Amino acid sequence: MQYPQPIAKLIEGFTRLPGIGPKTASRLAFHVIDMKEDDVLEFAKALVHAKRDLTYCSQCHNITDTDPCYICNDSHRDKSVVCVLQESRDVIAVEKMREYTGLYHVLHGAISPMDGIGPEDIKVPELIKRLQDDTIQEVIIATNPTIEGEATAMYMSRLIKPTGIKVTRLAHGLPVGGDLEYADEVTLSKAIEGRREL
Amino acid sequence: MQYPQPIAKLIEGFTRLPGIGPKTASRLAFHVIDMKEDDVLEFAKALVHAKRDLTYCSQCHNITDTDPCYICNDSHRDKSVVCVLQESRDVIAVEKMREYTGLYHVLHGAISPMDGIGPEDIKVPELIKRLQDDTIQEVIIATNPTIEGEATAMYMSRLIKPTGIKVTRLAHGLPVGGDLEYADEVTLSKAIEGRREL
Repeated sequence: MQYPQPIAKLIEGFTRLPGIGPKTASRLAFHVIDMKEDDVLEFAKALVHAKRDLTYCSQCHNITDTDPCYICNDSHRDKSVVCVLQESRDVIAVEKMREYTGLYHVLHGAISPMDGIGPEDIKVPELIKRLQDDTIQEVIIATNPTIEGEATAMYMSRLIKPTGIKVTRLAHGLPVGGDLEYADEVTLSKAIEGRREL
Repeated sequence: MQYPQPIAKLIEGFTRLPGIGPKTASRLAFHVIDMKEDDVLEFAKALVHAKRDLTYCSQCHNITDTDPCYICNDSHRDKSVVCVLQESRDVIAVEKMREYTGLYHVLHGAISPMDGIGPEDIKVPELIKRLQDDTIQEVIIATNPTIEGEATAMYMSRLIKPTGIKVTRLAHGLPVGGDLEYADEVTLSKAIEGRREL
């Protein structure tokens, strides 16, 4: 037996989203049928608008509905520092901290030879081009603390350092509020390596 | 910092779905932005169509795009047996078995005094009305093996039995392929209670 066509199509649509299997998809689809029609219409519109109205900032490559994005456009931000991130979502994480006032550069990925992703496939060349401008004095590399993120950080640092621009990397160590007992060996060894005098 | 308006709206839309928190919602929203525009349009259409084109069968209350639904309409099905289920999704589960050839009755819930849901709030009166027809000879109650499902089964059985119609309930016991060691006490006790001679 098959679901009626309209619900089968909706389930298929949900299944295409990441992390949603057939069971969850059918649960979501049935939920949609029980929603108010206006809410469903609004959600459908939000999908289309998000796809159509969003673009990437031509300067920092962050996702935006204006170009340049409002961060690049903000005259109060410190234009001498650029924080390099893997994804647009990471910008939100840093912004939430409310302490960083510099600019961003979103790579949209990390170097991963295993997956055939080289520096040219992510926004590394665009970063190098941005740095030719004299205003940038520090590049904070905040790629993920994973093998790919570290490789990307190393690659960029080797590329940028000769230009005299300061290159920094976020500290590795124990997460605040974490338990030493549950820290993995690599994190612990990084935390010891990066220890500071009190 | 806020997300650009179009993505914030989409995240909000995803958050309204069951089991999707803010983190998953933002992951899904960013995925949508990376999808092909055609695929997004199709998904948006599927949402609206599922909401607009689906209705409930006036006989069995299963979700359908035709009324009566194609099961009620199928002349090959055994019209003397009705399987009573809590949700439309359960119909799919039973149909997948490919052994049941009778009709269905979807209650859209279970009796739950704690939540203020009585027999009148689910499709119990509609079932009783259906049974006034002489064709139905057996009612298989396949509500969930939960407190609410059991209460609903007991309530309906007391209501139907006096009419002389056979009322049966799905067997409780160990799931096939399961491990005795991991069976909970209640299931195990039900399995012993329902043991059969070999």
